[in-house]
Amino acid sequence: MKLMRVGTAGAERPALLDETGVLRDLSGLVPDIDGALLADDGTLARLRAAAASGELPPLDAAGLRTGPPLARIGKIVCIGLNYHDHARETGATPPEEPILFMKAPDTVVGPEDTVLVPRGSVKTDWEVELAVVIGRRARYLEGDAQALAAVAGYAVAHDVSERAFQIERGGQWDKGKNCETFNPLGPWLVTADEVPDPQALGLRLWVNGDLKQDGTTAEQIFPVAEVVRYVSQFMTLHPGDIINTGTPAGVAMGHPDPKPYLRPGDIVELEIDGLGRQRQQLKGA
Amino acid sequence: MKLMRVGTAGAERPALLDETGVLRDLSGLVPDIDGALLADDGTLARLRAAAASGELPPLDAAGLRTGPPLARIGKIVCIGLNYHDHARETGATPPEEPILFMKAPDTVVGPEDTVLVPRGSVKTDWEVELAVVIGRRARYLEGDAQALAAVAGYAVAHDVSERAFQIERGGQWDKGKNCETFNPLGPWLVTADEVPDPQALGLRLWVNGDLKQDGTTAEQIFPVAEVVRYVSQFMTLHPGDIINTGTPAGVAMGHPDPKPYLRPGDIVELEIDGLGRQRQQLKGA
Repeated sequence: MKLMRVGTAGAERPALLDETGVLRDLSGLVPDIDGALLADDGTLARLRAAAASGELPPLDAAGLRTGPPLARIGKIVCIGLNYHDHARETGATPPEEPILFMKAPDTVVGPEDTVLVPRGSVKTDWEVELAVVIGRRARYLEGDAQALAAVAGYAVAHDVSERAFQIERGGQWDKGKNCETFNPLGPWLVTADEVPDPQALGLRLWVNGDLKQDGTTAEQIFPVAEVVRYVSQFMTLHPGDIINTGTPAGVAMGHPDPKPYLRPGDIVELEIDGLGRQRQQLKGA
Repeated sequence: MKLMRVGTAGAERPALLDETGVLRDLSGLVPDIDGALLADDGTLARLRAAAASGELPPLDAAGLRTGPPLARIGKIVCIGLNYHDHARETGATPPEEPILFMKAPDTVVGPEDTVLVPRGSVKTDWEVELAVVIGRRARYLEGDAQALAAVAGYAVAHDVSERAFQIERGGQWDKGKNCETFNPLGPWLVTADEVPDPQALGLRLWVNGDLKQDGTTAEQIFPVAEVVRYVSQFMTLHPGDIINTGTPAGVAMGHPDPKPYLRPGDIVELEIDGLGRQRQQLKGA
């Protein structure tokens, strides 16, 4: 299923994009798309059956904002330097084990919402990422099968990053990762059954129409299953948590000088095979 | 006011400790203690009036668990190395600007709940901290007055930390800061009007009865107002967010070898002047 949330920010209704591309209203069946739903196999099965029946009421998509496809996100754990090609472009040695940092859930916006360049920023950068959405409580998992069983689905995430804040202002990366609007998510939460191999997904990102990132999750240093297993050794994952699994090569920081950091007015578009497409305009904060 | 939440985990009810030390039930007036309440001056004024009237129903505290005094925490921003004496003991140069890292809200437990030593941990450490609770949306604040106006109140936080995970496992501190149960909070959320000078609070922590930390917020490198102002330049703070403002000297990592890291069975007690006292037993995860 392609789960969605549509409507004005903070008042989205749950919806589903069916196999014929028709947007269907789920608000008669579930209050929202959140961790509680993702952990509830019975209700998910009812949604699936309703979608298959073709009887869900259609929604007029015209003029409807697309919100992030998940409400009440608990935490967002991010993996740093998780693509061989991205590690090379930043001059970093590939990490021996996953690097973890965090984004607050309040950074999440819809896939076509405005992204704000923070005040004082001169190094706002882009990062297309595969987001893994957790559907089961997960602690001290063992092996790939347990890890993948904890995954409810996948989505496109834009891990917007301010490199000066992240790297040049003392201490930890979180400082450049948590500016408001810095995590566009969606358009869809695609359930895991529709993503047979998360290590075979192309990811692409354009700035003002120029292709900047053109990677594949096959380049991930730590694949999805290993990332989920690893994170669960250090923190408990809960339904509705997200893991942003890192970005491939092609970010502004990896360009030769002068590096083409984002400025107000720029348009960023990004997509992942089977997970949909985002488009954001940058504005000043 | 000393706001509290009492009852079993996940089903706490809002309460208030009145000036005579009697626990009073607030559940007839507000559904919970959360960011929405802290941003609502009218309801806070009604609680204050009800407390003064002496008419709030008393609660029998015997056998009642104390939960964390805040529900639906949005994010927890932590300040690293923010005490002159703690920077000295860890051999670190005092930072030129605040170091930020994050804890997920799901690490929060009540002030007397069990703290779990993670599997594989040999360096679980303690940190008594002044937690600042945000009551106003705050972005790009200017100056101390704006910053302090965004503060709803204060609480005791225990920023439990696994030093090997934090420092020796590649990358960012968050890896050793987000283990389950790693943020006991409370017992009280003391409203800011009852804390006239947040830079004049004694903080103390004992392990198995031995005094380990005995500091004062006067030693903070970046005081509360500056921390709130600073954080608001990098991320938007919302009502119900928390800032853990750092720990004074005396953590296990600062001891000579062999360092007395926490083990199952240990008892940690901590307190801050006017904000109450915590007591946790350590157990294996």
